[in-house]
Parts: sequence; structure tokens; C-alpha cells
Amino acid sequence: MHFDLIVIGSGPAGQKAAIAAAKLGHKVAIIDKMAMYGGVSLHGGTIPSKTLREAILFLFGLRQRAFYGHDYTVKEEINQHDLVMRVRMVEDREMRVIRDQLKRNRINMYFGMARFVDDKTVLVKGEKRDETLTADKFLIACGTHPARDPAIPFDDQTIIDVDQILDLKQLPRKLIVVGAGVIGIEYASMFAAMNIDVTLIEQRTTILDFVDSEIIDRLKYSLRELNTIIRLGESMEKVEKEADGKVKVTLDSGKVVRGDTFLYAVGRQTNTDSLNLESIGLNTDSRGRISVNDQFQTEIPHVYAAGDVIGFPALAATSMEQGRQASCNMFCGSVQSSHDLLPYGIYAIPEISMVGKTEQELTKEKIPYEIGSARYDEIAKGQILGEKAGFLKILFDPASLKILGVHIIGEQAAELIHIGQAVMSLKGTLEYFRDAVFNYPTLAEAYKVAALNGLNKLQTDENVCRIMPEKCDE
Amino acid sequence: MHFDLIVIGSGPAGQKAAIAAAKLGHKVAIIDKMAMYGGVSLHGGTIPSKTLREAILFLFGLRQRAFYGHDYTVKEEINQHDLVMRVRMVEDREMRVIRDQLKRNRINMYFGMARFVDDKTVLVKGEKRDETLTADKFLIACGTHPARDPAIPFDDQTIIDVDQILDLKQLPRKLIVVGAGVIGIEYASMFAAMNIDVTLIEQRTTILDFVDSEIIDRLKYSLRELNTIIRLGESMEKVEKEADGKVKVTLDSGKVVRGDTFLYAVGRQTNTDSLNLESIGLNTDSRGRISVNDQFQTEIPHVYAAGDVIGFPALAATSMEQGRQASCNMFCGSVQSSHDLLPYGIYAIPEISMVGKTEQELTKEKIPYEIGSARYDEIAKGQILGEKAGFLKILFDPASLKILGVHIIGEQAAELIHIGQAVMSLKGTLEYFRDAVFNYPTLAEAYKVAALNGLNKLQTDENVCRIMPEKCDE
Repeated sequence: MHFDLIVIGSGPAGQKAAIAAAKLGHKVAIIDKMAMYGGVSLHGGTIPSKTLREAILFLFGLRQRAFYGHDYTVKEEINQHDLVMRVRMVEDREMRVIRDQLKRNRINMYFGMARFVDDKTVLVKGEKRDETLTADKFLIACGTHPARDPAIPFDDQTIIDVDQILDLKQLPRKLIVVGAGVIGIEYASMFAAMNIDVTLIEQRTTILDFVDSEIIDRLKYSLRELNTIIRLGESMEKVEKEADGKVKVTLDSGKVVRGDTFLYAVGRQTNTDSLNLESIGLNTDSRGRISVNDQFQTEIPHVYAAGDVIGFPALAATSMEQGRQASCNMFCGSVQSSHDLLPYGIYAIPEISMVGKTEQELTKEKIPYEIGSARYDEIAKGQILGEKAGFLKILFDPASLKILGVHIIGEQAAELIHIGQAVMSLKGTLEYFRDAVFNYPTLAEAYKVAALNGLNKLQTDENVCRIMPEKCDE
Repeated sequence: MHFDLIVIGSGPAGQKAAIAAAKLGHKVAIIDKMAMYGGVSLHGGTIPSKTLREAILFLFGLRQRAFYGHDYTVKEEINQHDLVMRVRMVEDREMRVIRDQLKRNRINMYFGMARFVDDKTVLVKGEKRDETLTADKFLIACGTHPARDPAIPFDDQTIIDVDQILDLKQLPRKLIVVGAGVIGIEYASMFAAMNIDVTLIEQRTTILDFVDSEIIDRLKYSLRELNTIIRLGESMEKVEKEADGKVKVTLDSGKVVRGDTFLYAVGRQTNTDSLNLESIGLNTDSRGRISVNDQFQTEIPHVYAAGDVIGFPALAATSMEQGRQASCNMFCGSVQSSHDLLPYGIYAIPEISMVGKTEQELTKEKIPYEIGSARYDEIAKGQILGEKAGFLKILFDPASLKILGVHIIGEQAAELIHIGQAVMSLKGTLEYFRDAVFNYPTLAEAYKVAALNGLNKLQTDENVCRIMPEKCDE
């Protein structure tokens, strides 16, 4: 069978690439293992972890503690089943949505392992039979799996990687998380929110360097409020299982940390191994990543790659866009990406989201900026929700009032960032937030409070009317 | 004592007017009754009802029913105390925030009833003593209270108005709500969410006419799903209290409705009665409303009015902006209002929010439009939240792709509308939503799904590349 495009991997990048190509009238196939239909996003990754997060926020009444006390939980005994049940329901529904969408767009699904025979031919090793498919273009969107350190004695129950969290038979009392990347931090904060003692260990001395450092400080503060111990700049010497079933971690610094469960969240390895990329002369780095140009083209012009397999930021949202753009590049000619303004969403507790530059980036690039900020507890909706950690800040050019970056930590951060993103993309200034009417009470109001805070900082005699609408200077 | 500005009323309009004037360097006083510090927004209005709403959503596990079943509630027995406690906590905190803010801006508070002596002089009748204040400018922002029909035998417990809801000693099993305006619908849906049988009666045959009619259809559907009986086009003949303590309502159509509690939510009356407005020659309508020009000026040039006292839309958000603009008009000269794009937020269950025009308005004005829509259950975050009613639609010009209106019903509607508002204000088109990267999973993604849905409807041979980024037409 011959296709215009064969997509390897059915995760967010693969889906959106296939749909875009199909909408443009091309004949498209997706190849993936049956068990991975929907990609890591659906299996072990984005969807399960975000569903787990919502279940935890609710069952442990986290949003309600301001009103009903710190030890408040919805059920007396919350077990792994309460959490997993909801995840499975959402996975099933989302799977149906994806299947319907691909079907509606007449995309051909092949289940099995893909393997390049030559640069136009792929062999699909299915459970029952093999099939040989050819195509003019390929998109490699095969995703990643958790990396494992061979020195660590993984046992699927007490010493696990992030794909095994939902298979835990019971919740630990003490959890050790190694690796403070996005995934490690998301899970560490979720377990901490369940009143589990968490120790988070990271080899580097800083975490999530692409995030504004004030936001990171607030994140660390919140994690510690949830009783998390954060150990930065510590590498592991040894991980052992003790006679009583507990895990003992010995750090290079000589410290010993014990816990019921050990979660390894250090990096991910791509699923390129089985693709036989050598046969078509495509190279990968030590993590199996493929490099692409800004068109998402690999060294082989008709073979594209998108999603986690090409590395940072490895977020579902960006992967989708990469997939869509890759198809557009293939079939509509070169597309100039208009997306410098990629938002980032980190689903920790509290949630973090950002768009544009951080303070440390602006300082490094010698771009002067001023800050307008708002705490959620200053605004009515923050009080109604009992949300104490929330904080929003706008970085702006004090001369032109152009917005340089927006950084949010707290409830709905990942939703709210899109207001700032729209204003930045469409060249609005800080004055937009000053003048716009916001529904009351909303968290979005924090933009207005932050804008007024920022404008007040500029206040000198000559621009006293800046805080008032346009014609004030009459 | 003489002031540059005296504000009558300390609600949202009064606060923002006073702060704006103070920031511009003027000497400002606010007069209000001690018990009403913060206005109706804080006492019986916006803040209490929205806090009650959050408490209900949580305690009755409404957001969780998709996962834990329809009869799911967090506590076995939920009483009025569980609900009211949270409201009082939020009121206290918000009161402190307002007090601090006014203090920081050196605004003088006078507690008591204001009464005009002449058009530059006001008498404040305090609890201990009276005080006479003069000013160059006045802002009347005295707000409203629930209107009462004298034929109805109000008794503060079974036959009540909306200000008395928090004083109920116990929750009714059957509630009758008369009046399907914003407030009536918000409360009807809250009680319905508590598994209370609600009958909603409205004299007119339609409800909330300023809202898009498809959204209203969805609201009615959701209310009925919560077992609410909606009786439109029915007027009341008689309201009686029966021997067993129940309330009997006889409708003109001959129908009889019985319930434990009767809530009257038909219109509001302004608090202008005691102001002695006749003495300065200022007229009000039958509801006590004051008319103003687009500068918020009354017939008396140095007397302004803002907030609920001037009528529609009587929402806290718009009142704040009116207050701020009124001060700006007084002290900075004429301001052209740049706010055609007022968002409306209705905190029913489900939440509703809108910006721009409705389908019925566009049809009436003969403006052609196309629709792009998305159901929350099509997007991952909707599934994670178990939110089934959610729906977002974008009305746009099929030729220019200009956005004409955004209408949302469902979780976070009042927050999400601000993304659409920003894009409309800053002249973005439907293509903005197609091209922007949205965090995944978020409800904001519904904008992208709706945009692609809308663009697909336009798809003909010549614009096949419209669904792809700019340069696709090469």
C-alpha cells in the first residue's frame, strides 16, 4: 500500500500531522503499537498525570483547606483505586475521541512495530501479520519512554519509573523522587498534596531553569509547605532495597534517605531503537533524539520528525503544533513559524504557566524591564477559592509598555496565561489590561491588578495620567 | 470638612472612583452605612453568592459526579452552616482588603446615612453624631436592594428575598424562585445543584434576552437536568403561607405550586430614597434609577452616578469601570470610553460568559456570520474535569474572519472569555486561534477547536489552505 504520508506514532504530534495532511486531501497512515494508541500523552503521560492531579486536588480537598482545615480530606481512607479509576475512565473516553477523529478524517491505522526497510518503505510488524507500506513523506513522532539507570534495582513496586505510578498497589507513606524536571516536580507535588512525605533529589543546584526564578522560589516555598524536602546538588551513590522492604538511598554527600517507594524521574529515552534508522542513514544522540531544522525536516529531506523525539520542550501542546506545521511544510511549501510565543504549562501543585521572557533572560540580554504583579489573595476570586499561593507577574518595557513576559503560579495558571499570550501576540501593551473590563470575581482580574501595580511604579509628575485612560493628559 | 470629591456608597463603583481620584492627587471621602461597607457586592450580593456557589460546587461534588455517580456528595448531611461559614470568612477577608486599599490611598471614610442639603453639601447622619461635608464633585453610587411586592407576605424565613438567603435556618426540600433574571437564575441553579427541587417562575416568555439564545437553551437544558421546573410566561396571582408552614403559589393560569421556601428575585430598587435628591432637583425613575450621559454625569454637571444605581448591566465588573471612568471624566477632562467590549459573566451552574454580539443581534442587524464551536467533552481537559455541559462558540465574519462574538457556557467561562475579549479588542481574527499554541490540557483549547471547526465550514477549493498557516497558498 502506498501513502502520501506515513506517520510513525499516534501521540499528539502524529495525530495533528496526520489530520492536517488528510484535510489537505492527502492519503495518510499512522503506525503505532495497539497498546500505545494515543501515544505517551494518553498512556502514562499527560492525560493520566493530569487526571490524577485533578482527582488528588478533589479527594484531598486541597482547594478547600483554607476553609475546612489542613487535615481535611473528602474520604477517610483514600486508596490507589479511587485515584486510578478516574484515570482509566478519562483514558477510555479520550481514546474514543481520538479514534473517532482519525476515522472521520479517513486516516488509516496500522497496529504494530514500524521498521524502516529503505527511505521510502516501512515494515509494520503486527501481532498477526507483517505489512509493507511505502510513502512519499514520513513523520517520525515515536515519542519517548522513561530512561533507566542500570545501577538502580527497579522492581516494579518499590523502585519504579514514572510509567509505573498507576500500577502501585498502595500509596507510600514516604516517597523519594529523584529528578526535579517537569515530570519529577509534577509527581512530587501531587504525592505531597496527598499528605505523603516526599524527598525530592536533584543533581543540579537549580530546577526548571527555563522558568522565571521568582516563580521557582514560590514553587519551592509551596512544596515545602506541603512538607516536601528538597535536596538540590546531590547525586546518588547507591539505591538499595532493605530487608524490611523499604528503600535506602545513599547520596554522594554521605546522607542517607529512606522511603517506602523510590520514583526515578531522570530524563527520557526516545523510542527510535526499533525503527532501524541506521538503514536510512539517520543519526540520533545519546538519548535517541533526532535533530531537525526549523521546518521539522531531518537530514533526509522527505523524512520529518516532531514531538518528544526531537527534544525540548517535549510538551503535548507544542508537539501538536509541531506536527501540524510539519505537514504544512511538506504539502504547502515552507511555513514561517509565527510561534515565538510558546506558552509553557507545568501541572505541578500549584500550577505554573508562562509566556515570553523571564527576568533572568531579560537581564542577560540587557533588556530593561519593570514588573507589575498581583497576588491571588488580593483579588476577590482568590479569596473565594481560598487560593493563597497564587501570583501573577507581567514583565514590561517601561518606555513603550510593551509586554515582555507573563508568569503565573497558582490555580488555573495554564488557562490564564492565554490572555497574556493573546495580548503579547497581538501587540497590546500594559494599557490593555488597565483598560479592559474583567468579569468580577475572576482570577483573570489579576492581570488588571498587576497592570495597575506596574503603572504605579512608573508614576512621576509627567505620567500621572498614565494610570487613567487615554485622554487624561488633556 | 471640604473635599474635591464625595462618593456616596462604598461598593465596587464607589471604591474605584475614590481610588482613581485619590491617585490623581485629590482629596476624597466615601460615605456609607457601617453595615454596608463594601456595598451590596460584599453584603448579600456578588461575593456571598459566588462564595456560596463555590462551596456548593465542592460540597455537593458537582464537578465530580461524572466520576463518582449522581448522588455523590462530600458530606452525608450538609447544612446551612457548612455553606454560610465559608461565606463569612471570605466576606471578612475581602472587607480587610478593601479597608486596607482605601486607607493606603488616604481616602476618608464617613459612616452613616448621606443626605443632600444642597448641591454642594451633604449631611452624614452617623450613629453617634451628624457631620456636614462639602465637595466640588459628587458621585452617587449608592446601589440597590431587592424590590418587594407588597402583596407578598414576606416573613424572613419561608417567604424571603435574595438578601435573606444566608439567614435561612435550614435548606428547603422544595424551593420556589420567582424571577428569572441573572440573580434568580444564579440562585435557582445553586439550589438545584444541592439536589433541591426548584420551580423557577417568570412572567416573561424568555429569559436573559441579552445572552445568545443557543446558550440559554443549553442553560435551560442543564437546569432541567438538575430537576428544575421552568415555568415561563406565568404570572402570580397569590402567594400564601399554609397551616403546615409550606408556601402555596397560585398562578394566573390556575396552576398551584407548593414549596418549603419562596424566594422573590424580581428586580431591585435603588437606595436613593434617603438621599433627598429632590432638594437638588435630581429625578429618578420608578425603580429609583438615575440617568446619566456617557460621561456618567447626571443632569447636574458636578454630580455623577455609577454602578447599579444607573441600571443595566448592574454587574460589579462594569460598576468598577464606570466608577473609574467617572473620576477620570471629573478630573482629567472627557474620556472616550474604549469599552464596547464589555464581558458579561453569569455565575449560574453552569457558568455563562460572553463578549461581543449574539446570533440574534447579528441577524437583526443583517450582519452575515459563520459559527465555530467546540464542546468541552471533545477536549481533553473537559474530560479530565468530567464537565459535560461545557460549550464555546465563536461568531465570525466569513469574509474577513473578524471575530464578532464569543459565547461560553461551562466551567471557567468567566475566566476564558477574556482570551476572546483580548483577541477581539486587539483586532485579531479567527486565524489567531488557529495558529496559537494552547497549553494541553486546558479548557482554553476549546478556542482552537472552535476556530478549526469554523474554518472547516468555509472550506472550498480556493481556501483549502486557510486551515493551514499563512504561506500555505504557495
